[in-house]
Amino acid sequence: MSAPSTAVTSLASADLPMPVPAEEYDRCPVTDVVRLMSDKWSMIVLVLLGRRPHRFNELQRGIDGISHRMLTRTLRGLESSGLVHRRVHATVPPRVEYALTPLGESLLEPLSGLADWAVRNWPEITAARSRVPVS
Amino acid sequence: MSAPSTAVTSLASADLPMPVPAEEYDRCPVTDVVRLMSDKWSMIVLVLLGRRPHRFNELQRGIDGISHRMLTRTLRGLESSGLVHRRVHATVPPRVEYALTPLGESLLEPLSGLADWAVRNWPEITAARSRVPVS
Repeated sequence: MSAPSTAVTSLASADLPMPVPAEEYDRCPVTDVVRLMSDKWSMIVLVLLGRRPHRFNELQRGIDGISHRMLTRTLRGLESSGLVHRRVHATVPPRVEYALTPLGESLLEPLSGLADWAVRNWPEITAARSRVPVS
Repeated sequence: MSAPSTAVTSLASADLPMPVPAEEYDRCPVTDVVRLMSDKWSMIVLVLLGRRPHRFNELQRGIDGISHRMLTRTLRGLESSGLVHRRVHATVPPRVEYALTPLGESLLEPLSGLADWAVRNWPEITAARSRVPVS
């Protein structure tokens, strides 16, 4: 009922060359960011680090079923994209903490918008899926 | 500099049981929606349909490199999740159009928030990736 927001306009009315060229998909920032978060663990790690920095073992204890290897790999992926920072504190023994970078912090807001949508519309999505498959 | 938005709060301070139980990942609405859009074509199909309904052949001509089979599969996936509706007009021959459902329309806004973030921060993400890999 309300007027379309500028956010909707920006996606649905962006000028795209037609036909949309194939190389758009291979280096589309949007698809890339979505993929970055579509693996099993990245999202929950971002959410936990969004609360406060965590040590490796704290993260592993906080996420049921994540192996040492998968947590390492997830953190490396988030670090290499600049979303997470590994801080080494000069104590004896050195204390290592993982924290969101400012870039990672800034991702929480749009991610929350999508998360809220997903939770709010989940009943409708699952209801659609349980209907007779389209022919 | 600004106060945290309520959107950020909703994700980062949601009550999670600790440790986050493993079944959260298998049926997390957020991860599911992100995955739904992480395949090669769903996002561009949603964006095109966000402008206006399209016929199958219009979509195929509009997206460079998408095969008949992949477009069929992409549309089925979006239909089965209730985001896209296949309309058959009672003309001779029948005219078939694909359009966003109200649910699909409502996804464009949070998706745009994420898309804007991705485009805006793309230089920083790619710069991070081009740095020496973290040890």
